[in-house]
Amino acid sequence: MKRRRLRGVRVHPLALVESGTIGRGTRVWAFAHVMPGARIGSRCNIGEHCFIESGAVVGDDVTVKNGVALWDGVTVADGAFLGPYAVFTNDARPRSDPRYKTPREKFLPTRVGRGATVGANATVVCGMRIGEWAFVGAGAVVTRDVPPHAIVVGNPARRIGFVCRCTRPIRTRRACACGALYRIQGGKVETVRPPGDRARR
Amino acid sequence: MKRRRLRGVRVHPLALVESGTIGRGTRVWAFAHVMPGARIGSRCNIGEHCFIESGAVVGDDVTVKNGVALWDGVTVADGAFLGPYAVFTNDARPRSDPRYKTPREKFLPTRVGRGATVGANATVVCGMRIGEWAFVGAGAVVTRDVPPHAIVVGNPARRIGFVCRCTRPIRTRRACACGALYRIQGGKVETVRPPGDRARR
Amino acid sequence: MKRRRLRGVRVHPLALVESGTIGRGTRVWAFAHVMPGARIGSRCNIGEHCFIESGAVVGDDVTVKNGVALWDGVTVADGAFLGPYAVFTNDARPRSDPRYKTPREKFLPTRVGRGATVGANATVVCGMRIGEWAFVGAGAVVTRDVPPHAIVVGNPARRIGFVCRCTRPIRTRRACACGALYRIQGGKVETVRPPGDRARR
Repeated sequence: MKRRRLRGVRVHPLALVESGTIGRGTRVWAFAHVMPGARIGSRCNIGEHCFIESGAVVGDDVTVKNGVALWDGVTVADGAFLGPYAVFTNDARPRSDPRYKTPREKFLPTRVGRGATVGANATVVCGMRIGEWAFVGAGAVVTRDVPPHAIVVGNPARRIGFVCRCTRPIRTRRACACGALYRIQGGKVETVRPPGDRARR
Repeated sequence: MKRRRLRGVRVHPLALVESGTIGRGTRVWAFAHVMPGARIGSRCNIGEHCFIESGAVVGDDVTVKNGVALWDGVTVADGAFLGPYAVFTNDARPRSDPRYKTPREKFLPTRVGRGATVGANATVVCGMRIGEWAFVGAGAVVTRDVPPHAIVVGNPARRIGFVCRCTRPIRTRRACACGALYRIQGGKVETVRPPGDRARR
Repeated sequence: MKRRRLRGVRVHPLALVESGTIGRGTRVWAFAHVMPGARIGSRCNIGEHCFIESGAVVGDDVTVKNGVALWDGVTVADGAFLGPYAVFTNDARPRSDPRYKTPREKFLPTRVGRGATVGANATVVCGMRIGEWAFVGAGAVVTRDVPPHAIVVGNPARRIGFVCRCTRPIRTRRACACGALYRIQGGKVETVRPPGDRARR
């Protein structure tokens, strides 16, 4: 256990930060643990009781709410939101008996795309990709890739529509109230025009 | 970080209590954090790894089992039970990208009614009201209001019946084994006679 | 709070171990708490933010990933794997109001069988038995006993098949790729021949 002091990083006195790779403006709250070798960007918020394992990668402007554990193999892109107690994994078929343990090289990566949201208490099985600006509803259990802008809910998670960066539903042939315009073709969302400067709800 | 010492409140040496508003007889266990401005009543039990945010309000005789985070905007009435790792929220459409963040004034409140139970690992999306003596089953994902005495399960949570304060199913025109009598009219439970003094199971 | 020092047990300096009954080779990570009277076997891994209550029993070679709370009444057999934030309970009908609290003698036990897996963020209601080598999928909500070797998923958890110790699906009349051979009769799995020495995936 070797505590690190990093310039411009606010670490709660009851947190444990052992990584030397955390960007400026990032805050780490009480009872959280960032292991050596974990990488976290700038202006992030790492909530209480979080655990960021060696090998996990977190971009800039990411919110990691309380109680989230990010394992080696999990990559979270810029601007993503991980709700409280969202749960990730890196072993698809875990056993603990030494004879049947998954060798580490067969662990599967998980990627949360830019700007995406993973709702409170959602479960993301490993090997999945959560697309850019996707929205995983609270309590959803993600067992398949989530396309960009898709909103998924339930157990197992199923797509119920597409949402704008501002989280409003995307409608075909109509601009979003925030100004953005999308085209949906073949089940895929294409951004025709991003939201304007006044996208805040 | 400013630790508070409160008369009649038992705080584990590894907990962090910064609030000055906690009632007598309340216990706070290890690795839990009660922020300044959080309000907690008397004779409560705040389990390990809990987080009670500034602005959260907890009544008397409330049990908050391990790993529960209560946010600003969450109100828990007297006698409610929050099971281990039950998850609450206060932002219905969270994004982390600074351009699309929900402004704080649009956060939604959640209310857990008197005597209600929120089961283990249940998820309660914000803006919901859990009625008095309602019972949210373990692992349920609450996306709609739960009426008083209703028992809900599943993802999304659906009502499967009504339960007495003593948790036995309510039957129409028959007194509960605990002595209580209810009337169900228009999908609502009306208490004709509360349980007697010997309601313990 | 009385810290115990145990031979051959590696305890993180930020963990709290009060039990004197932990086997050699077991590791306990940061912000975890093992209460006095909890029993843990040898070569276990007790993840960060775990809570092992007095009365809980954990066998040898068990992996308890982060954020798992094991209560009095929960027994975990040798070689079982408990995924991150898997949630257990011991009170089937919890209320917090002193008039309606479940007396402790009516708490229900839970047993996780030898070699079984409980997936990430799964919920196991009390009174259940998870059979040997069973596999509870991530996010599943277990409300019924899980037979040996069964794989269950969903909310509520339903059986979707049977798996080998090595987690591959069991097929009737065909040996598993790992060498094991099973017979399924009357919905029950019988081991004809266990996996060979080269069962690792």
